[in-house]
Amino acid sequence: MNEIHERRKALAARLDELKIDVLLASSPANVRYLSDYAGSNGLVLIARMEAHFFTDPRYGLEASQTITAHVHVAKGPLIAAAAALAKRKRWKKIGFESEALTYSAYAKLKEDLPLGFSLVPIGRVIEEQRMIKSAEEIEKIRRSVEANSEAFSRTLRRVKPGTREKEIAAELEFQMRALGAEKPSFDTIVAVGDRSALPHSIPSGRRLAENELLLIDMGASLEGYSSDMTRMAYAGTPPRRIREMYRAVHEAQIAALDAVRPGIAANKVDAAARNVLKKHKLEREFIHSTGHGLGLEIHEPPRLGKKEKTRLQPGMAITIEPGVYIAGLGGVRIEDTVVVTATGCEILTPTSKELIAL
Amino acid sequence: MNEIHERRKALAARLDELKIDVLLASSPANVRYLSDYAGSNGLVLIARMEAHFFTDPRYGLEASQTITAHVHVAKGPLIAAAAALAKRKRWKKIGFESEALTYSAYAKLKEDLPLGFSLVPIGRVIEEQRMIKSAEEIEKIRRSVEANSEAFSRTLRRVKPGTREKEIAAELEFQMRALGAEKPSFDTIVAVGDRSALPHSIPSGRRLAENELLLIDMGASLEGYSSDMTRMAYAGTPPRRIREMYRAVHEAQIAALDAVRPGIAANKVDAAARNVLKKHKLEREFIHSTGHGLGLEIHEPPRLGKKEKTRLQPGMAITIEPGVYIAGLGGVRIEDTVVVTATGCEILTPTSKELIAL
Repeated sequence: MNEIHERRKALAARLDELKIDVLLASSPANVRYLSDYAGSNGLVLIARMEAHFFTDPRYGLEASQTITAHVHVAKGPLIAAAAALAKRKRWKKIGFESEALTYSAYAKLKEDLPLGFSLVPIGRVIEEQRMIKSAEEIEKIRRSVEANSEAFSRTLRRVKPGTREKEIAAELEFQMRALGAEKPSFDTIVAVGDRSALPHSIPSGRRLAENELLLIDMGASLEGYSSDMTRMAYAGTPPRRIREMYRAVHEAQIAALDAVRPGIAANKVDAAARNVLKKHKLEREFIHSTGHGLGLEIHEPPRLGKKEKTRLQPGMAITIEPGVYIAGLGGVRIEDTVVVTATGCEILTPTSKELIAL
Repeated sequence: MNEIHERRKALAARLDELKIDVLLASSPANVRYLSDYAGSNGLVLIARMEAHFFTDPRYGLEASQTITAHVHVAKGPLIAAAAALAKRKRWKKIGFESEALTYSAYAKLKEDLPLGFSLVPIGRVIEEQRMIKSAEEIEKIRRSVEANSEAFSRTLRRVKPGTREKEIAAELEFQMRALGAEKPSFDTIVAVGDRSALPHSIPSGRRLAENELLLIDMGASLEGYSSDMTRMAYAGTPPRRIREMYRAVHEAQIAALDAVRPGIAANKVDAAARNVLKKHKLEREFIHSTGHGLGLEIHEPPRLGKKEKTRLQPGMAITIEPGVYIAGLGGVRIEDTVVVTATGCEILTPTSKELIAL
């Protein structure tokens, strides 16, 4: 995994600027990014000239076969093993993921270290590096998006009034896996009728009825990489209010997509969607942000929210997903996964954006 | 949800002993336990005479309809909204989940509080209460176990040499959902041949071959509650070494199950399994602990490991899962979900424990 070596090198090159001797990566996605280890108990230490990987005996055999860093198999807590190594190597300034490490782990680590050693919160330095995807990562996201869209098409053909939310979700996830995904990248959302007004509702036993909306928000995790898409269908001929809502959200989504280009601040993309909904007097019903980065995790920086100043750069993978929610009536959200390019953006999601008639 | 009210009351009654004015619950499972909220952004504050729930606008509508505490819909970080309330109410000693809250959230919370206020790490107080399940919770675990076992049976009938690990995993998870589960309670493990020696391997495209082991470790999450089971099959007639390994692990599992009763220390149950494997000269190949609690999470206290002194009590739901792993040959693990009763234990898992011939 030459790319993984490059990622570690890029971080090692930042140790001086961060005023640390070693960087301790502990969150699963960062550990995977820096080691290709996909299990639940791993830890990476990056020093200037070397990298170390820690895991427990359950993963020892696999790790020793596949991981390019120095592999340590620890019987107790990994963090104690990492601290012991830092002590031995005299790495006195230890940078840690302050937005992932728990207070307890921090307190314990601090207690274990001799005088003269210190813990330096480094926030989301690794996530910042992860924002820009390599060509190889973009191809993985593309494959995830394609499997996700294909699972959607295969499932939707079989949905009709009378089908339950839970049955639709089960079929979507089965199809994803049949198409190569490891699992859904988040809990699949399937909401019918007025339940679509709950932006994150959990699939229930409720059946799709005639003259009801159907909202599906789904993503696959494939080779570790996420996709994310929301599409809408209607059982019957949609009434005027639904058609208007749909048109407004659609227009907002196109406006946000049109705004995506290198150099633009994330909140300007959010504003592009929000301004369209304002024109339609629906901005108060748009109760979340316009999108988020995705990759090894389903939610990664940058966030495309009202206050987010991060400037978009080529290689960022993000979602564009404005939505409008009216209690008692229903909600409409339209979401694509896109990649920022040198000149604008490429929409990876191949699925049509029309309101689907069932 | 009367039971949820009782849970909060039981914690409120401990505030004095914990020397705090209010308890801040932030981890998803604890928030769900104390509010029935199953989303991804919630927070609960428990004071002596009142309870508060915080979420963001995406969940506001649903929360206001279903949650019995005072509901606050916050636009910014929930923790800031909770801190503001604590300040207003003059709750000066704030207990926090030190094993769940991140260092950043802790540091930010601390910075926001006026002089005279303090943050008190309370460790896993809520998880300790969660160790003892109510009759209603045990029924949910039972339903989860039953759906899981049924999904296993339905899938296994269709497995034959040539089937891929990934296909088996996809079918298991589809069947779980068809039987009412929301999702798997952890990433389903399906490992064939020598891959079964990796205790937590990820399902791959590899096909089950003739004369190979098949290890399946699976769990469902149903109404929020977990199940966990491992079973083994063999394609063909197992050779002597595999039969011996299987018999040893089976004997160890029975010994551990026999040891489960109220009052016994968790490490004594672990020792019961370990001693059997020692007799078979396989104790060095048993590289994990004998089991773990489960409920709203797939891993909860108590852990049944070498050093764990927690005494078992009626109402605890745990797994019993010794295993032996030999690189190049394969691994064998047998796992049931059980509940500690007044006199011993009830094995919830109905699936036969024979080595299945395919």
